[in-house]
Amino acid sequence: MDYRSMFEDAVDTLRQEKRYRVFADLERIAGSFPRARYRDDSDNARDITIWCSNDYLGMGQHEKVVASMQEAAGRLGVGAGGTRNISGTNRPLVELERSLADLHRKEGALVFTSGFVSNEAAISTIARLLPDCVIYSDQLNHASMIQGVRQSGMQRHIFRHNDMAHLRELLAATDRKRPKLICFESVYSMDGDIAPIKEICDLAEEFGALTYIDEVHAVGLYGPRGGGIAEREGLTDRIDIIEGTLAKGFGVMGGYITANKSIVDAVRSYAPEFIFTTALPPALCAAARTSIEHLKTSNAERTQHKRQAQLTKDILRDAGLPVMTNETHIVPLLVGDARQCKAASDMLLEKHNIYIQPINYPTVPKGTERLRITPTPLHSDEMIFELRHALISVWASLELPRERASETITASKLTSGDLTLPTVGG
Amino acid sequence: MDYRSMFEDAVDTLRQEKRYRVFADLERIAGSFPRARYRDDSDNARDITIWCSNDYLGMGQHEKVVASMQEAAGRLGVGAGGTRNISGTNRPLVELERSLADLHRKEGALVFTSGFVSNEAAISTIARLLPDCVIYSDQLNHASMIQGVRQSGMQRHIFRHNDMAHLRELLAATDRKRPKLICFESVYSMDGDIAPIKEICDLAEEFGALTYIDEVHAVGLYGPRGGGIAEREGLTDRIDIIEGTLAKGFGVMGGYITANKSIVDAVRSYAPEFIFTTALPPALCAAARTSIEHLKTSNAERTQHKRQAQLTKDILRDAGLPVMTNETHIVPLLVGDARQCKAASDMLLEKHNIYIQPINYPTVPKGTERLRITPTPLHSDEMIFELRHALISVWASLELPRERASETITASKLTSGDLTLPTVGG
Ligand SMILES: Cc1ncc(COP(=O)(O)O)c(C=O)c1O
Ligand SMILES: Cc1ncc(COP(=O)(O)O)c(C=O)c1O
Repeated sequence: MDYRSMFEDAVDTLRQEKRYRVFADLERIAGSFPRARYRDDSDNARDITIWCSNDYLGMGQHEKVVASMQEAAGRLGVGAGGTRNISGTNRPLVELERSLADLHRKEGALVFTSGFVSNEAAISTIARLLPDCVIYSDQLNHASMIQGVRQSGMQRHIFRHNDMAHLRELLAATDRKRPKLICFESVYSMDGDIAPIKEICDLAEEFGALTYIDEVHAVGLYGPRGGGIAEREGLTDRIDIIEGTLAKGFGVMGGYITANKSIVDAVRSYAPEFIFTTALPPALCAAARTSIEHLKTSNAERTQHKRQAQLTKDILRDAGLPVMTNETHIVPLLVGDARQCKAASDMLLEKHNIYIQPINYPTVPKGTERLRITPTPLHSDEMIFELRHALISVWASLELPRERASETITASKLTSGDLTLPTVGG
Repeated sequence: MDYRSMFEDAVDTLRQEKRYRVFADLERIAGSFPRARYRDDSDNARDITIWCSNDYLGMGQHEKVVASMQEAAGRLGVGAGGTRNISGTNRPLVELERSLADLHRKEGALVFTSGFVSNEAAISTIARLLPDCVIYSDQLNHASMIQGVRQSGMQRHIFRHNDMAHLRELLAATDRKRPKLICFESVYSMDGDIAPIKEICDLAEEFGALTYIDEVHAVGLYGPRGGGIAEREGLTDRIDIIEGTLAKGFGVMGGYITANKSIVDAVRSYAPEFIFTTALPPALCAAARTSIEHLKTSNAERTQHKRQAQLTKDILRDAGLPVMTNETHIVPLLVGDARQCKAASDMLLEKHNIYIQPINYPTVPKGTERLRITPTPLHSDEMIFELRHALISVWASLELPRERASETITASKLTSGDLTLPTVGG
């Protein structure tokens, strides 16, 4: 049996489709983020500027947060030493869960090893515990939510992205007596558009459904205390389960859900992904909690983040670059072709010391390949102008169109309308 | 729709079956492990000794490992800031993967957020990439492997625990032309028994199957360089995929596989659990690598670990306590009843300041409930005698049998023979 060639063939398919990925080897420099040291294939290092980090607020290098990790590591060690049940529940983790429940004004919180795992574990477990449950899942939901939906084994309906008429139709067509779970995101990270949360809650109320929101790209960033879009819109208490990550706005690692006590206790008691894995190290928990608590009271990072994101959009759009319209901090620049997108990214790195990963299929639909730019509060105005300069030069070299009327590039225009779930790798 | 009571009912079932879990709130004290601070329900703290940690060698508090995390956090920050593909691949992570490939003498390694995720992602992805693959999975495989097997959607056969005749029978009954994957563990953590690795490799060769071993409870602990049982037995190159954790013997957090380049590249390119999640923070990677490299050359921890584990077994067995026989570092003490097991654990904590979590169904079969004791090199001889004293007292109070001929309590006697996969929560 020639196994090696079976695996090689699978990878060759990706190469042929121009979606074989090579990871950039980066070394961030605490205190100088978004500057980092990049190592090329020959192990030569040089300094570059990262423009695609999901450490949206730069909290991963915040002095207090770093000190918190160092202090906890020195005092408590580097690992939890066990699963939550078998000696792994540590004080900073208990405190972190309290801090998260408070952030979202919920009765309880549960921490997982990642945002991916929190979605997979919570969605599948919640759905399985509700007899004969039906899941309604937004078409553009993240791979981790899709995995949770699939894993539940429950009946599922995929509704067209943010399409309330379609969601209503699907809800109305289901037996009123069956438990229902609506799963969606607040900020969709590739287009940067926002879900109609209030409308979803209204529909959920009308049809007696539970609501599950992924605020991974919003926690820390939106709302007066960093509680996300739901907090900003005053809708927190209409959402049953709020899921988030500790790895983006909060700059560390880990994932969580917050909900009422009965839901938290049920997931805690039944989810294999929660039960059978080592708990998050105390030093990570301490760092995450420091970051969350800081952002509950400090608005400086959010204000500056908003300013730099808007400035980046304005300046790039002004230069005729195809910025996709949205109301968030994400600045997607449409390229529309996998090869060109990769070439633009390579050229930015080689010639301009700017790192922006190309985003190709299956992360986004074919034909909508893009550079996804994420300004942080730590990107200076000068860096934004350098970015503009570099992009104009790359656009010229690759003969990419600049005249395109950017106002028309909205997310809804770009979604494929394909309602099947992506296969493995998607 | 009364969702709250649906969740409460699900949890009540666990309460009635005496398997509702309450987590002990612990605060380890770096430098004094296995000592820790325990907080009871009323938030009163007191010092206790942990006897059930999976930080088997105490590396989670090793000076060099702690310093490594602190140094990396100070220099590189506390988070990776992105997925592997989108700016999250960091230098310490690249170096960690090299260190792991070298540990197991394989061409490549791939790091995941946890051992759980590495099993789920690798098994499901490998099986899906092999057209019409059949999986052979040991009956007592860990929940994370079961999840990977299930998630693959491929045909699966469960073979009786470590039963080579059964495995052969199942392999022989399958079309020779179909790709095959045999999944098993080296050390089964609840009984502490070891798989017949050589025999499995022989069968794999005979029937043209790939071999996948979970060495989670062995890496760092066995083999001249800590490469696990396969290294100890000189069988590393006969195993196709070796999976391990960074969270137990190495004391930190994270999981990995090592294999040939084609397998590593295929999993890297196709597994959603790997692609769509934030990478491990540089500070964790640095700490893990320091731990691995230390254990490649230092045998002191392994030698002392072996000594203390053997001493614990001898002393408890000598006292007529029902130590289950095995050849590893795990010391399972049979209780055989969920209520009694919980009572014994509670009494140890309340009266003797000793923390040993009760292990009940579904982690182990009903009727085999136990206290699972894990001596480390840092448990002193004195602590072992204290443990003996405490256990004798608890056994007397609860009128648990001590005369039982311990030699007969072997793992194989206890496995249930039930070949169906456990349901959720198992
Ligand atoms: C919408 C969404 N949910 C969940 C996740 C997973 O979070 P984490 O990186 O913490 O695993 C991501 C990305 O990583 C995401 O984009
Ligand atoms: C056999 C086995 N495999 C995998 C895991 C998961 O490893 P981790 O704790 O790193 O998620 C565990 C326990 O946690 C285990 O016992």
